[in-house]
Amino acid sequence: MEKEIIQWIYEAGEKIKAALKEDALQVDHKSGRTDIVTNVDKEIQDFLVGKIEAFDPDAKILGEENGQDTTPIDKGRVFVIDPIDGTLNFVYQKENFCIMIAVYEEGVGQLGFIYDVMRDDLFWGGPLVDAVYHNEEKISAPANKKLEEGLLGVGVSIYANNFQHTKDIGVQTMGVRVLGCAGLDFIAILKGTQIGYLSLLSPWDYAAGSIMMNYFGMPTCGADNQPLSFSGREYFRGLTPAAMEQAKEYKN
Amino acid sequence: MEKEIIQWIYEAGEKIKAALKEDALQVDHKSGRTDIVTNVDKEIQDFLVGKIEAFDPDAKILGEENGQDTTPIDKGRVFVIDPIDGTLNFVYQKENFCIMIAVYEEGVGQLGFIYDVMRDDLFWGGPLVDAVYHNEEKISAPANKKLEEGLLGVGVSIYANNFQHTKDIGVQTMGVRVLGCAGLDFIAILKGTQIGYLSLLSPWDYAAGSIMMNYFGMPTCGADNQPLSFSGREYFRGLTPAAMEQAKEYKN
Repeated sequence: MEKEIIQWIYEAGEKIKAALKEDALQVDHKSGRTDIVTNVDKEIQDFLVGKIEAFDPDAKILGEENGQDTTPIDKGRVFVIDPIDGTLNFVYQKENFCIMIAVYEEGVGQLGFIYDVMRDDLFWGGPLVDAVYHNEEKISAPANKKLEEGLLGVGVSIYANNFQHTKDIGVQTMGVRVLGCAGLDFIAILKGTQIGYLSLLSPWDYAAGSIMMNYFGMPTCGADNQPLSFSGREYFRGLTPAAMEQAKEYKN
Repeated sequence: MEKEIIQWIYEAGEKIKAALKEDALQVDHKSGRTDIVTNVDKEIQDFLVGKIEAFDPDAKILGEENGQDTTPIDKGRVFVIDPIDGTLNFVYQKENFCIMIAVYEEGVGQLGFIYDVMRDDLFWGGPLVDAVYHNEEKISAPANKKLEEGLLGVGVSIYANNFQHTKDIGVQTMGVRVLGCAGLDFIAILKGTQIGYLSLLSPWDYAAGSIMMNYFGMPTCGADNQPLSFSGREYFRGLTPAAMEQAKEYKN
């Protein structure tokens, strides 16, 4: 299965690069002024959905666009897809965005894929392949650093408002970064250049990254240290084991 | 003069890459837990100072390390240097840091250089060469976007505390980013992928970027819309002309 998914992702990446070259993005607004979607997000979602349906007609799909955003995660095989993670970066920077796909079976994360399109950098793996790869190279678990030993990715609004103690935790690190793309934060965690990520996310934002973090023994949780719900937008916390122990003290 | 400076910068970049390969960074603390400096910052500052002194023995130097941090900007030729801008990124990410050099003559910015070392990406120019270049290619002025038409780089602590209305201004944009490296924010502005940058900076953080922004008619200022002092750490605001007009309303 992983070979097929990687092939879809590379094809999708080529389509996105071609669309950027044509320079004809159509931007629509969703829930608000800064919640945008482009014709390319929709086209890539349709492309991936078509590939998934041809590959496994029984699989379900959980994804942001096209009314597939409430599929439950816990029954059968579910593909969780984010055709373009970091749409604002995609539109305004034309870089720093990712394609993300995750595969769950009976509620258990089996495979995650995060593709930094413009850097042509793919991180993928999980229990089904018993490894995590950076492109074709197997990577090892990141160092188990404490809060004060590394940089932390955050969502800026929850940091500024100290929602779920995000600022209390952030000020204990060496510094916080705001990248505007969950996939890039997960890539930084997998590379060991960030000790974690605290943000307000939807399931398609955290599914692939969580599978790879968890494979390496790095814990993830939702609000108040509870399990992630995979249902709607929620608080997300993903950290090294040592940093999670420290962060656990901070609950409402 | 610009040819010599570019040569120094490329040589310094090679030294930094070699030091990263050796993986023997020595980290010292300065004013606090997260205010760090490495042996490489010091070596690169010494290297640049040596080159400047050989090139122009009468020139003065304003730089972060080695006790040269209070040189006045307004008399004679002053080189403003930041051997490694984004030291935390340098240490923890091994990427996303810059070398920055600026040349002032009688208080007037003449040349700025920002080199993203790991991407091998040099932005440089100013009045003395009557252009701004991305590597060897002349670039044109970024679009004159309003606040609501782009992304904004911020320093996270002034954003979270709404110091100098940074959050009031930030929430009017399409989103804020925190990169941890002033040079990368200026590069984003010059590429047109950010409409500006609001942060708490020292002269060596903003000198090179300001010269190139100002060359393109993009204004910069300090606290309360006052001119930058080039003396110690201060509030910095740099924006497109249209966004600066909007931001000017926000003063204490």
